[in-house]
Amino acid sequence: MGQRFDNISTWLNTYECTRSTTEWICEGLEIEDYVVQSHPDVSPAKWHLGHTTWFFEQFILVKFLKNYKCFNEQLHLIFNSYYKSMGNHWIQGDRGQLSRPTVSEIKHYRQYVNASINELLTGYLDEKARMEILSLLELGINHEQQHQELLLMDIKYNFAVNPFNVSYLTENYPSSYPCSASYLSVKGGLYQIGQSGIDRFCYDNETPRHKVHIDSFQIRNSLVTNGEYLEFIKDNGYNCPDYWYSDAWALIQSQCWQAPLYWFEKEGHWFYKTLYGEQAVDLNEPVSHISFYEAAAFAKWAKKRLPTEFEWEVASQELALSVSNNFMEKRKFAPVLSQIDFTNDNHLISLHGGLWEWMQSSYHAYPGYVAPEGALGEYNSKFMNGPMVLRGGCYATPEQHYRSTYRNFFNADKRWMFSGIRLCKDNT
Amino acid sequence: MGQRFDNISTWLNTYECTRSTTEWICEGLEIEDYVVQSHPDVSPAKWHLGHTTWFFEQFILVKFLKNYKCFNEQLHLIFNSYYKSMGNHWIQGDRGQLSRPTVSEIKHYRQYVNASINELLTGYLDEKARMEILSLLELGINHEQQHQELLLMDIKYNFAVNPFNVSYLTENYPSSYPCSASYLSVKGGLYQIGQSGIDRFCYDNETPRHKVHIDSFQIRNSLVTNGEYLEFIKDNGYNCPDYWYSDAWALIQSQCWQAPLYWFEKEGHWFYKTLYGEQAVDLNEPVSHISFYEAAAFAKWAKKRLPTEFEWEVASQELALSVSNNFMEKRKFAPVLSQIDFTNDNHLISLHGGLWEWMQSSYHAYPGYVAPEGALGEYNSKFMNGPMVLRGGCYATPEQHYRSTYRNFFNADKRWMFSGIRLCKDNT
Amino acid sequence: MGQRFDNISTWLNTYECTRSTTEWICEGLEIEDYVVQSHPDVSPAKWHLGHTTWFFEQFILVKFLKNYKCFNEQLHLIFNSYYKSMGNHWIQGDRGQLSRPTVSEIKHYRQYVNASINELLTGYLDEKARMEILSLLELGINHEQQHQELLLMDIKYNFAVNPFNVSYLTENYPSSYPCSASYLSVKGGLYQIGQSGIDRFCYDNETPRHKVHIDSFQIRNSLVTNGEYLEFIKDNGYNCPDYWYSDAWALIQSQCWQAPLYWFEKEGHWFYKTLYGEQAVDLNEPVSHISFYEAAAFAKWAKKRLPTEFEWEVASQELALSVSNNFMEKRKFAPVLSQIDFTNDNHLISLHGGLWEWMQSSYHAYPGYVAPEGALGEYNSKFMNGPMVLRGGCYATPEQHYRSTYRNFFNADKRWMFSGIRLCKDNT
Amino acid sequence: MGQRFDNISTWLNTYECTRSTTEWICEGLEIEDYVVQSHPDVSPAKWHLGHTTWFFEQFILVKFLKNYKCFNEQLHLIFNSYYKSMGNHWIQGDRGQLSRPTVSEIKHYRQYVNASINELLTGYLDEKARMEILSLLELGINHEQQHQELLLMDIKYNFAVNPFNVSYLTENYPSSYPCSASYLSVKGGLYQIGQSGIDRFCYDNETPRHKVHIDSFQIRNSLVTNGEYLEFIKDNGYNCPDYWYSDAWALIQSQCWQAPLYWFEKEGHWFYKTLYGEQAVDLNEPVSHISFYEAAAFAKWAKKRLPTEFEWEVASQELALSVSNNFMEKRKFAPVLSQIDFTNDNHLISLHGGLWEWMQSSYHAYPGYVAPEGALGEYNSKFMNGPMVLRGGCYATPEQHYRSTYRNFFNADKRWMFSGIRLCKDNT
Repeated sequence: MGQRFDNISTWLNTYECTRSTTEWICEGLEIEDYVVQSHPDVSPAKWHLGHTTWFFEQFILVKFLKNYKCFNEQLHLIFNSYYKSMGNHWIQGDRGQLSRPTVSEIKHYRQYVNASINELLTGYLDEKARMEILSLLELGINHEQQHQELLLMDIKYNFAVNPFNVSYLTENYPSSYPCSASYLSVKGGLYQIGQSGIDRFCYDNETPRHKVHIDSFQIRNSLVTNGEYLEFIKDNGYNCPDYWYSDAWALIQSQCWQAPLYWFEKEGHWFYKTLYGEQAVDLNEPVSHISFYEAAAFAKWAKKRLPTEFEWEVASQELALSVSNNFMEKRKFAPVLSQIDFTNDNHLISLHGGLWEWMQSSYHAYPGYVAPEGALGEYNSKFMNGPMVLRGGCYATPEQHYRSTYRNFFNADKRWMFSGIRLCKDNT
Repeated sequence: MGQRFDNISTWLNTYECTRSTTEWICEGLEIEDYVVQSHPDVSPAKWHLGHTTWFFEQFILVKFLKNYKCFNEQLHLIFNSYYKSMGNHWIQGDRGQLSRPTVSEIKHYRQYVNASINELLTGYLDEKARMEILSLLELGINHEQQHQELLLMDIKYNFAVNPFNVSYLTENYPSSYPCSASYLSVKGGLYQIGQSGIDRFCYDNETPRHKVHIDSFQIRNSLVTNGEYLEFIKDNGYNCPDYWYSDAWALIQSQCWQAPLYWFEKEGHWFYKTLYGEQAVDLNEPVSHISFYEAAAFAKWAKKRLPTEFEWEVASQELALSVSNNFMEKRKFAPVLSQIDFTNDNHLISLHGGLWEWMQSSYHAYPGYVAPEGALGEYNSKFMNGPMVLRGGCYATPEQHYRSTYRNFFNADKRWMFSGIRLCKDNT
Repeated sequence: MGQRFDNISTWLNTYECTRSTTEWICEGLEIEDYVVQSHPDVSPAKWHLGHTTWFFEQFILVKFLKNYKCFNEQLHLIFNSYYKSMGNHWIQGDRGQLSRPTVSEIKHYRQYVNASINELLTGYLDEKARMEILSLLELGINHEQQHQELLLMDIKYNFAVNPFNVSYLTENYPSSYPCSASYLSVKGGLYQIGQSGIDRFCYDNETPRHKVHIDSFQIRNSLVTNGEYLEFIKDNGYNCPDYWYSDAWALIQSQCWQAPLYWFEKEGHWFYKTLYGEQAVDLNEPVSHISFYEAAAFAKWAKKRLPTEFEWEVASQELALSVSNNFMEKRKFAPVLSQIDFTNDNHLISLHGGLWEWMQSSYHAYPGYVAPEGALGEYNSKFMNGPMVLRGGCYATPEQHYRSTYRNFFNADKRWMFSGIRLCKDNT
Repeated sequence: MGQRFDNISTWLNTYECTRSTTEWICEGLEIEDYVVQSHPDVSPAKWHLGHTTWFFEQFILVKFLKNYKCFNEQLHLIFNSYYKSMGNHWIQGDRGQLSRPTVSEIKHYRQYVNASINELLTGYLDEKARMEILSLLELGINHEQQHQELLLMDIKYNFAVNPFNVSYLTENYPSSYPCSASYLSVKGGLYQIGQSGIDRFCYDNETPRHKVHIDSFQIRNSLVTNGEYLEFIKDNGYNCPDYWYSDAWALIQSQCWQAPLYWFEKEGHWFYKTLYGEQAVDLNEPVSHISFYEAAAFAKWAKKRLPTEFEWEVASQELALSVSNNFMEKRKFAPVLSQIDFTNDNHLISLHGGLWEWMQSSYHAYPGYVAPEGALGEYNSKFMNGPMVLRGGCYATPEQHYRSTYRNFFNADKRWMFSGIRLCKDNT
């Protein structure tokens, strides 16, 4: 571990880059857009700006920068997300109740913390402190990258709730090319899953590297499209209990779900809310904003199934000859299928940079997993009681954030993340 | 009816005054403060700015100004509060989900409508149109005055929720003089209640004028103070079911109420959130922000009772030799007892300009009441199924809005309005 | 007060009669029918049997019968309904969770208390004790009579929930005669309302007798029929917000109400669940099982209004030349209109013995009302915060329980009681 | 497959045995005890009697017995539990609202179906029909055995809610011997998990047999005792967020959990409700009625972990030299530790016949799993979206129902089943 921590100035640069990227995401927002929280799961944009800053302040500056004075002690209550061992925190669903601190105050907070990080990193640090600080800085950077994606998820939701057709982006909506579907074979056997966590960054939940046996199976090259999903809808998929888990059926009945999130029908045609405003549904585009329940129902209807996270990890390493390049920094904020994806028949298309893919796996600790000591142990481990795993990455994921071992997770009913469906099937 | 509608320019002046007063109330707010809705009963400040404007647009301009083009057709959905006959409207509790229209757009909306009202009123109007328009304008002005008070209620609530000690006002908190309590007699008999609604403005719910018999009774000159209410708290008032209605007891148990809204205890001392930030509770000041349930429980504990709205109206006309002058425009935003109140022993102190007083009366139509035709019939009549009546007015009520026949009403559990307690008792 | 308390043996007889009537009501029930609680407002039949017994035990025997030993101390928790000053009590909505005590144990409890009451009343009692005991016995008898009606309400509800067509009665459903509607005039003036509470029994809430001024008005001779109510339904009454209070509209939208309780449509025809099983709706019969909200909406649709409780009390005394005789003991458990009602044009039909009539009055204390000391003060007074008043009586009210001053009350949304609509209108 | 289906008369005998065992469980109940449903998860005893009967009727008689006439067509609505493809069914949480059918009617229903099964099995059946019928009969018998355990779970819950100290059993509570804890090693490697489903009965969810790799680990011989769990409680385990999953912490905070279900403190001592009435907590006895959340929190506090279902299955086959014999038919309805368990150091104690053991595994389909066609596909597969797995069996599980491959499952927050904790740890 640690060669990657030799060069401090590179890290300072990455830090500054990441920080300014977050602000770049918010550039087009009005002050009012920073404040609202239109669903308890969604956070106000200004909260993301503050929370990511608080993370660096509390986990690095408070501990390592001599004589560091917190920007404002009271912000701790507001910007602590869920770290119980860090003290009380504001209720997540009530973040939208707070007009203060203002956006301007939070921007000052960001600058103050940035300056202090700069001071810390440009000052004298012994080997041990440097390693420890840069390791935490790396975590903080990855943490902020996660929130960049969350910011885009939440901005999309807040804008979509608004009855006005508000657009985050003013460019033309990117259209998708059609893509034929084929199934690629993966051999069964004993595989290594996860990472050691030593040579390069990964979250604790990707460790330890361990053996998993999988049977041979076939995985689809491409994601399920809106066009295919529409067939499911037209075939009465949302009204036939056969395709749904028991919990899922209760949910869609009580919530009257009849289509993915953001879809609406107008005069017999389907539209969806996008970051580019309202658009006619593009049938070539991979279907997005579906819950695990919908992904699983679709798979059952299609007489296929979803992969496990182990199958997916193996397949992504065996088959992904080239990865898509539709990452966040490209600012093409739709799960668009570009032509470049089709150059090779034998690889997984849109593996990264398309949509998060729902796995038929509940999120648990890997065998031998040990949570970090202290508050950072809460980062991942306290959620390891079985939400559903998503793998891959999406068009709102920063480029450096992709990894075939990455384990994202959400509850089975959530669908405001950029999620899609990759099918697989057993060899018979 | 109608002499008061002879002079158009006076009305235009009053209109403009009222409109700018609303904006004056919002002057110190940050953009973020206009957006939040920290409770379903509370509306964002920017919503009040828009809704009051919509009222003039929909009820006057759309009907009377030739070729009038709505500022933005889509605003109708957002700024219609509850007029079912005007079409769909946004859910009240979800107003805080909307970042758009922005404050700046709403200010343009206000200017646009102001200019159009000016155009309408300075153009040619025949007698009939003038009478009709000015009558609606008068209603719209009174409507906006109601929302001025609501704005202050809602700003107070939104600020109080914030864990930072945010102040709407930076001046010193006004302190109260002590006031002795005495009971004044009112003779029984048959009295006229309400108004004809012809010579001066009143809401439809104050009409028709009709006879009510009341028995002789005694009413207290002054409102119950924080000091007296604290005695009730210390005597375990919130934990003894004897004082509480059955519904009230269920409520305070489930909500863990132990004091008025905005009160909190710190190291054995009571404080409250005010529009001037956090303050030590002033024991001389009339108690405020109590629900009907608390008012009634206090009265029972004190072996007194609350007056009916008929008793109150009679008493206010018989006994109120001079009224308090602590109206909204004075910008003394606390239920302060000034020395001037004590010049005469035989009158009701703080009758207007102190706090709304909870009545032991459910809000129903007066005998012979007829609701206005059309959407404006919804203004008052659809709430006449028994919420509790409050009488008087408060320090956030505009001066011209006071009237001894005025009937305010809220559900028995609400307490974010500026409400207080006036006791009375039977002659024995 | 008190002459009526001279003859102990008459009272003992009345007591025994009342007690055995309660059991007579339950005669046809299966054991299982005594246990269920199909709605939080509804109580299991066995609970009524126990609670009415507990009332005599706690308020009379424990205090007056020397060496009285409670049947079972633990029953206190279960059978105390809501008397906070009597200690903890089981949650009302959870009464159906208790299989024990069994029906058989409760019947033993009844016998045990009956024997003890007999012992008390046949033993020596001085004048003071006799007066006090008989006064409480009278209250207990009236209390049990109230529960006889509640028993029938609750049995009806529990049976109606059952998907099987369960009948409480096996006789033929009694059919109604048609009845023409006319309006009778009542003169305005100052009237005496309520009772002194001295010469004959009444509840505390009917006292003190006091003066109320009413304007002249007209009241309809007969109740609104199912046929008339069906016109309201067909005229889209449940889907037009104009007729409904704001709270009512929210309720019927969220609950999807489209007809009175117990009504259901089958192949284009309306049926209802009755105590005689499922029946085609009888158009001549007065409409029943409607909430205050529905009564008020119907009245608005019909361009009439509901009477106040004061108007009703005056009218019932001025105009009710003869009362209906369809009381509980007749066991004709439907709001049937018999021919005998029509002998005189100038009286109110079905005043008693038909259906409880919703008043446009919220339930409050009369002027000068003083609640009894102790737990019995909770009997009525803690509900005097504004539920809606019903007047009259119904086919499930025991004969001796009728009184023109009687004040029944329920929340505006309830409709499992035997409630109906009597209209009135202003003189113009 | 199928040799076990050669002898019809053996199957008829097993059928009759199972059916009468169900009735034997209910023998001591009062009629009232059959009716109540004191929690939405719990069903009335009479419902279990009816539903198990309905299962035989619908899945066998309706299809195979010529001219079979259903006992009562209306029962279908009531006794269909959750088979959507069988038509509408009554809401699970509302089963306690139904007084009818009565217990007596349901007993007739049982007899009627028993007679018809007898008729079917004693009549002529060709090979194919016999195989199909007996296969379904076997499933129905296993289904009824599951409900025997559910009956005991639900009776316990219904009795425990009752404030009276009601006992299902009148014998003395069986006391437990102390048992030392040791950890037994299991070797890592590739193991076969599950069954083929051909030679002997198993549920579809135990198939197909497939390979799983596990690392070597150690598993504790005995279950965690009440005494050990009490240490966790005393160490403030329920009030320290470190031990709890995020969801779990939210739950125990909102529900104020401070001990296992059925535990209560009286004068500083812990008691619990048992099927033998209230008892002092036996410290030697394995702790029971804990949720997955509590099991996981205890494990974290103890610096151990829960096994996965694969580890457990392997361990149970490698190490369980002898199984406990505390199965349901013994009628020792407590998780008692008898002396016989300690004869051998190297085996797992209480593996079967003690308590269900919570696994660190979410319930999903095994690789290659195919759900049965038709309604029986709903039996297990629609719950395979991640509830938590329990393994083993308990003192209320019928003897023939034990199997090391058996997969029980409940949501992580449930604790009215007879659940306990077996710890394991990694080799280091």
